Amino acid sequence: MLRPGFTGSPLDRADALRNDPDAFGAALSDWRARLLRLDGIDPVLDEQGRLSWGSLAEAPEDAPLLLLGLIDGRPHFAALDYDMPLGATRSPAIFRALGEMPPEEASTYAGARSLIDWHLRHRFCARCGSGDTAIHRAGWGRKCGNCGTEHFPRVDPVVIMLAEHDGRVLVGRQPQYPPGRYSALAGFVEPGESVEEAVARELFEEAGLKVRDVRYVVSQPWPFPSQLMMACVAAADDPTLTIDTTELEDAIWVDRAGVEASMAGEPGAPFLPPPPFAIAHTLFRWWLERE
Amino acid sequence: MLRPGFTGSPLDRADALRNDPDAFGAALSDWRARLLRLDGIDPVLDEQGRLSWGSLAEAPEDAPLLLLGLIDGRPHFAALDYDMPLGATRSPAIFRALGEMPPEEASTYAGARSLIDWHLRHRFCARCGSGDTAIHRAGWGRKCGNCGTEHFPRVDPVVIMLAEHDGRVLVGRQPQYPPGRYSALAGFVEPGESVEEAVARELFEEAGLKVRDVRYVVSQPWPFPSQLMMACVAAADDPTLTIDTTELEDAIWVDRAGVEASMAGEPGAPFLPPPPFAIAHTLFRWWLERE
Repeated sequence: MLRPGFTGSPLDRADALRNDPDAFGAALSDWRARLLRLDGIDPVLDEQGRLSWGSLAEAPEDAPLLLLGLIDGRPHFAALDYDMPLGATRSPAIFRALGEMPPEEASTYAGARSLIDWHLRHRFCARCGSGDTAIHRAGWGRKCGNCGTEHFPRVDPVVIMLAEHDGRVLVGRQPQYPPGRYSALAGFVEPGESVEEAVARELFEEAGLKVRDVRYVVSQPWPFPSQLMMACVAAADDPTLTIDTTELEDAIWVDRAGVEASMAGEPGAPFLPPPPFAIAHTLFRWWLERE
Repeated sequence: MLRPGFTGSPLDRADALRNDPDAFGAALSDWRARLLRLDGIDPVLDEQGRLSWGSLAEAPEDAPLLLLGLIDGRPHFAALDYDMPLGATRSPAIFRALGEMPPEEASTYAGARSLIDWHLRHRFCARCGSGDTAIHRAGWGRKCGNCGTEHFPRVDPVVIMLAEHDGRVLVGRQPQYPPGRYSALAGFVEPGESVEEAVARELFEEAGLKVRDVRYVVSQPWPFPSQLMMACVAAADDPTLTIDTTELEDAIWVDRAGVEASMAGEPGAPFLPPPPFAIAHTLFRWWLERE
């Protein structure tokens, strides 16, 4: 059973409450309601390195409250502060904290972070340019007061994949990776293509590789800012690489022993693996454990 | 081998051209370049019911040209006319035409339609409200002249799934379906959840069903306006249904013989199936053929 990062949140998203102003009002006035404590868009952690929750009284004045959902029937919110700096940069501290947090807590945070980030980037109506847009559906949308268009939080599907040839897999490194780090190749799914077509296109674009038999393995969200990562494998008949150096600094074929040594962190291993909460980590583990 | 609808376009998306103004300029002045003929956002069809292509001279004056990609090295474009009516409504005529077109042609059209629709809905910068946004990357983005934010075409991931219990599958009908039509249940993937989590959430929300062992089957794009449809199956231990009547008019369990009769269009079959270019059709077929 695969347990990818940022999954397993205990939150019930309580979709029914979002469209029911009375039920939403009741959730807001529920004395048990909890507010996610944030430092900007980053989480405030308690002494155990877990998410920290306060009461709704801690929310900044006039800050809209977004209903994350219910845990054991208890409403959980995040406050939207429009003065919050945008979370485009991911600090090493945040990555460390997320890595040490139980995946189900990281998952709860991931949904909140993506939602907040989307509101911050979408205060204006893309259809008519009006700034008169307001939070809608308990936080899960915005509605334009000028042209009436409804906008919904964005989720960008991304494929991330291992090409396989003769018992080896292809790993690549982007220039901004930490030294020694290699990972699975990845790219955004574009309008008008399937997951399977996106996998084939990206492997061809980035590595000059033609593949067949694309197979989906597992998915997870990635909250920087809001991707849906879908991990796949695909078979390459010809291992010759033509690397697109605008995307990748390097790409190499690694055999099973090499992936094992890398994942075990052995000295002299071919590469440093991605962190456990990245789906590439799950994908490498799946590939090693597969019979 | 599954062949879902709207897949198999012969277009090479030619990503490298998008970021290379010289190469893009060369494509624009290539005498072999072709322009997708459109009637509003709908396709113009030739006598064989295929997509119709003209020369770039047919483009409205000042209309930006979007590079769909290359076929046999030959650039293929669509013109963006900002006065085009938005394609929110899907005429029965369009559905009929798409159903009769080879899937690979429908796939080429799907990418163009989603891209054009996105530009029409995103003329203003959602970050700052400015109307000073311009086509970017050969049509595959917009850039704000005021705040510099880059915007990329949106693809909304959707899960569509069959719950299984004791050799039967769950199908439902939405109020706006044609009489007798049932299909797989579906819903948008939200920020902070995986494909597998979205499947479980939607089946619980819409039908009150708890499921395990979610399995991905196949995907396809859906250009109304730009969804990525991911077909899955999941196992339910308890078949008791609690239908959310705001989403579904009805939901029923159908056994193998019933799905076979429905897909064969037999009189008296439990339901009328979705059209062949909808992924639910592929999913039913996969389910019947699976051993």
